[in-house]
Amino acid sequence: MPVKVIGFNGSPRKYGNTFKLLSIALNSARRHGAEVELIHLGDLTIKPCLGCLSDVQEACRYPCVIDDDMKEIYDKVLSANAIIIATPIYWYQPSGLVKNFVDRLTALENMIWISGRSWVEGKVAGVLAVGNDSGEMLVVSALTTTLITMGFVIPPFAIACFNENRDVLEDESTVLDAMNVGRSVALMAELMKKFKAEKWFSPDLLSRMRDVVEFSRRKALENMELQRSSRDSIVRKLLSR
Amino acid sequence: MPVKVIGFNGSPRKYGNTFKLLSIALNSARRHGAEVELIHLGDLTIKPCLGCLSDVQEACRYPCVIDDDMKEIYDKVLSANAIIIATPIYWYQPSGLVKNFVDRLTALENMIWISGRSWVEGKVAGVLAVGNDSGEMLVVSALTTTLITMGFVIPPFAIACFNENRDVLEDESTVLDAMNVGRSVALMAELMKKFKAEKWFSPDLLSRMRDVVEFSRRKALENMELQRSSRDSIVRKLLSR
Amino acid sequence: MPVKVIGFNGSPRKYGNTFKLLSIALNSARRHGAEVELIHLGDLTIKPCLGCLSDVQEACRYPCVIDDDMKEIYDKVLSANAIIIATPIYWYQPSGLVKNFVDRLTALENMIWISGRSWVEGKVAGVLAVGNDSGEMLVVSALTTTLITMGFVIPPFAIACFNENRDVLEDESTVLDAMNVGRSVALMAELMKKFKAEKWFSPDLLSRMRDVVEFSRRKALENMELQRSSRDSIVRKLLSR
Amino acid sequence: MPVKVIGFNGSPRKYGNTFKLLSIALNSARRHGAEVELIHLGDLTIKPCLGCLSDVQEACRYPCVIDDDMKEIYDKVLSANAIIIATPIYWYQPSGLVKNFVDRLTALENMIWISGRSWVEGKVAGVLAVGNDSGEMLVVSALTTTLITMGFVIPPFAIACFNENRDVLEDESTVLDAMNVGRSVALMAELMKKFKAEKWFSPDLLSRMRDVVEFSRRKALENMELQRSSRDSIVRKLLSR
Repeated sequence: MPVKVIGFNGSPRKYGNTFKLLSIALNSARRHGAEVELIHLGDLTIKPCLGCLSDVQEACRYPCVIDDDMKEIYDKVLSANAIIIATPIYWYQPSGLVKNFVDRLTALENMIWISGRSWVEGKVAGVLAVGNDSGEMLVVSALTTTLITMGFVIPPFAIACFNENRDVLEDESTVLDAMNVGRSVALMAELMKKFKAEKWFSPDLLSRMRDVVEFSRRKALENMELQRSSRDSIVRKLLSR
Repeated sequence: MPVKVIGFNGSPRKYGNTFKLLSIALNSARRHGAEVELIHLGDLTIKPCLGCLSDVQEACRYPCVIDDDMKEIYDKVLSANAIIIATPIYWYQPSGLVKNFVDRLTALENMIWISGRSWVEGKVAGVLAVGNDSGEMLVVSALTTTLITMGFVIPPFAIACFNENRDVLEDESTVLDAMNVGRSVALMAELMKKFKAEKWFSPDLLSRMRDVVEFSRRKALENMELQRSSRDSIVRKLLSR
Repeated sequence: MPVKVIGFNGSPRKYGNTFKLLSIALNSARRHGAEVELIHLGDLTIKPCLGCLSDVQEACRYPCVIDDDMKEIYDKVLSANAIIIATPIYWYQPSGLVKNFVDRLTALENMIWISGRSWVEGKVAGVLAVGNDSGEMLVVSALTTTLITMGFVIPPFAIACFNENRDVLEDESTVLDAMNVGRSVALMAELMKKFKAEKWFSPDLLSRMRDVVEFSRRKALENMELQRSSRDSIVRKLLSR
Repeated sequence: MPVKVIGFNGSPRKYGNTFKLLSIALNSARRHGAEVELIHLGDLTIKPCLGCLSDVQEACRYPCVIDDDMKEIYDKVLSANAIIIATPIYWYQPSGLVKNFVDRLTALENMIWISGRSWVEGKVAGVLAVGNDSGEMLVVSALTTTLITMGFVIPPFAIACFNENRDVLEDESTVLDAMNVGRSVALMAELMKKFKAEKWFSPDLLSRMRDVVEFSRRKALENMELQRSSRDSIVRKLLSR
C-alpha cells in the first residue's frame, strides 16, 4: 500500500506561487510512490485555538471542542504518513490561516498527556514558504521546530523557499528544490513505515534518571576541577576592577 | 558495528548546564547502541569563515583553506552517523564558538557543487540549547533549519532546551527530554544506516522539470478560473476607494 | 493632551499571564502620563487576510475589504500614539488571533503605495510574550521586526517575556520588565509627538541615488584592490585541490 | 556637535554587497548631519566570549577580561550615538565574526548589574543583512531583538536586506532602503541627544510593585468571573471525552 502525503495550501489564493510549489512537491511525491492529496486551507473555516490547555493541561485533546472544519482535517492528518505545509509569507511568519491550523493541531500532539503518545509522532513533514520579498527562513524555522517538537521527522532537504515577485515556475532552482521536498518526504515516509517503531518519545527513560543525573553531575564536577583555577582567576580579575 | 554519535559542547564552560545536558544525551545514545564522543569546542581554535564561496561558489570545499582545528573536526563529522550540537544561548543565538563551527561546516555541505552531494547528507542531528533566561527556540530553530538544509535528518523530539538560572539536573522534565534526544538520534542513525540511500537530494529530477512545470501551471490556471470572478471583484472594489 | 497607548490582549483568556502583564504595562504607561485602553482580540471577529496585494500591490488599503471588527480597530490604531501587543506563545509564534490582527494591519502599512506614507509610521510599539514553556524570543523577534518594517519605533527595553508555568505576578523581575515596557513606550511616544517629524521613510532620497551608488562602487573597488591578491590566492589554492 | 554613527562591516570581504550597503547607509547618515566611521570587523581579532557571567553575574564588565581588539571597539561604541551592524548571512544567522562582536558587547550591557545602567542604553541602532540566498529576516530579527534588550532604540525602517546573487547596487529598492536606514538612524540619534533622558530602564519602579501587582490581580479575577462559566463548560466537555 502506498504511503499517503497530504499537502496544505496556506494561501487564500489557489493559483499563486504557494499553490504552484505545493503542486510540484506533491506531484514529485506521487512519482516516488506516494498517494497524494492537496487541501486548500482557505476553503475551510478554522477558528482560533481557545488555549484550553492553559486552563487544564489534559483538556486539550482530540477531537477539539471547537466545531468547525478542523474536525475533518484531524482525521486526514491521522490517516496520513506525511504532510507538506505550504505557506505564503505574511510579515515574516506563516499566514494567520496556517497559524490557526498549526495551533489547532495541538489537539493531536497533546494526546501525549492523555494516551502517552503524540498522535503525530513518527509522521514525516516538509515545509514550503513563498513570498514576494523576505522572511522565508523565519517562517520555515518556526514551522520545522514546531513539527519536530510535535513528533514529526524532517527528512534531508525537506524545505523549499521562494521570495521574489515573479512566477516561481520560471525559477529552475526552486522548482528542483520543491521536487526534492516531495521526493525526500515520500522516501522518508516509506522508511518510517517499514520501521516498526516503538515510541519515539519514551517516558520510560525516567526509570534510569537517577543514574543518568549522577553520571552527568560527576562528569561536570571532574571538568570543574580541571577548569577551576583558570576560570576563578578570570572572575577574580574582573571583580577586582 | 555500532553507529557513531558525536556531541559538540559549544560552551566555554565544561561543567555548566550545556555540558550536563549533552553528557545526558550522549549517555542515552550509548545506552541505545551508539558509540559516542564528546568534543569541547572551547578547547579548539576555530577561526571565522572567510566566505570564499561568495568569491567563487566552487572554491569552498573540503578541506577548508584555514589551517586550524576544524581539520580534525571535519574528519570526525565525516566518520559520524550523527551529531548533537549543544549550545549555550548568547543573545538568543548560538554562541560565537558554535556559530564559527557551523559556518565552517559549509566546506562539507558545499561539496554538492563539486561532487554533486552534500557530504553530510543523510546524517542525523539533534540540538540542545541552554540559557539562564530566554531565546532557546530562536537558537534551536535557526540551527535545525540549517542542519536540514545541509542534508541532515532531524528525528522526532530531537530538541531539548533549558532556560532557567538553576542546575538543569534538578529539572526532571528537561533531563527526560535530553535522554530522548540521545535515544531518538541513535535510533534514527540506525535506521538511516540500514537504508541503503541513494542520494537524498537528486539533481536528476531536473530532467522531468518541463512536465512538472507544465502540470503546475495548468492546475494554477484552472484554479485561477475558478477564483477569478470573486478575487477580481474584491480588487476592483478596493481600487475604486 | 496626553499620548494614547492601546494594549492588545492576544490571548483568548482574559485572566491569564498575558492579560496580567499587559495590564501592568498599561498601568505603568498611565502613571507616566499616557491615556490607555486595553482591547481583548478574542472578543473580536478578525478574519484571515485575503492577500489582495499579491494580486495588485495597490489593492490593499484602508479600509480593508473584509467587513469585520478590524474596521473599528484600524481607527483606534490610527488615533493612537503607541501600541503594545501582548501575545501568548503558541508553538513558538504569536497566537493565530494575533497573527490575523498583524496580517490585517497591512491595510495601514501598505498606504505607502497609495499615499506615499505608511499610516503607522512614527508610532511607538512594545511587545509582551507569555508562555508556559518556551519560544518567547522567536515570537518577540518576529513581531518587533514586523513592527519596525511597518514604520513603528521600538524604544529601549520595550520587550518583556515570561515562559513559566506559574503566576507571572509572583515573578518580580518580569513584573519590573513589564512596568518598564509601559514606561519606555509612553516616554518615547511623548518624544515622537514633540518631534515634528517629516517622513521617516523618504522616497525622495531616490534623487541622490546615482551619486550614492557611484560612491559605494568606487569604495568597493578600492577595497577590492587592497584585498585582491590575498583573496585570489586563497581561491586559487582551494580550486587547485 | 554632530552625532556619531559607527558602521560595522561583519563580512570578511570588504568589497561585497555587505560593504556596499553599509557604505550607502553611512553616506546617507552623513548627509543627514552625522559624523560617520566604518569599521571592518574582519580586520580585528575578536575572540569568543568566555561566558564569565554564568559563573558570577557581576563578573562580566567593562573592560572585558580578554585582551584583544574589542578593547578599542568598546570605547568607540561608548563614544557613538548610534551603530549600524551590517552582516552577511551565513546559515540564516549573522556571521561568526558578527556573533562574537555581539556576544562581547555584553560587557557594556551587563554594567546594569554593576552601575545600574546598561552603558548602551538610549543609543540608536540599525541593521543590514546581505546574502545570496535567504535567511535575512532570521538574522535581522535576532539582532534587533538583542539590541532592544541591550537598551538600543530601533527607529522606523532601520532595517535593510538583500538576498540575491547579484550586485546590490543594481537594485534600486534596496539602495533606497539602505539610504533610509542611514537617515532614520541619524535623525533618531539627534532626537535622543536632545532628549535629556533619565534612565530608560528604571529599577525604581520596583517601589510601586505591590500596588501594581494587586491591581493586575484584581482585574484578572474580575475577568475570570466573567469568563468562568463559558471556559469551565469547555474544559468539562473536553475532560468528559
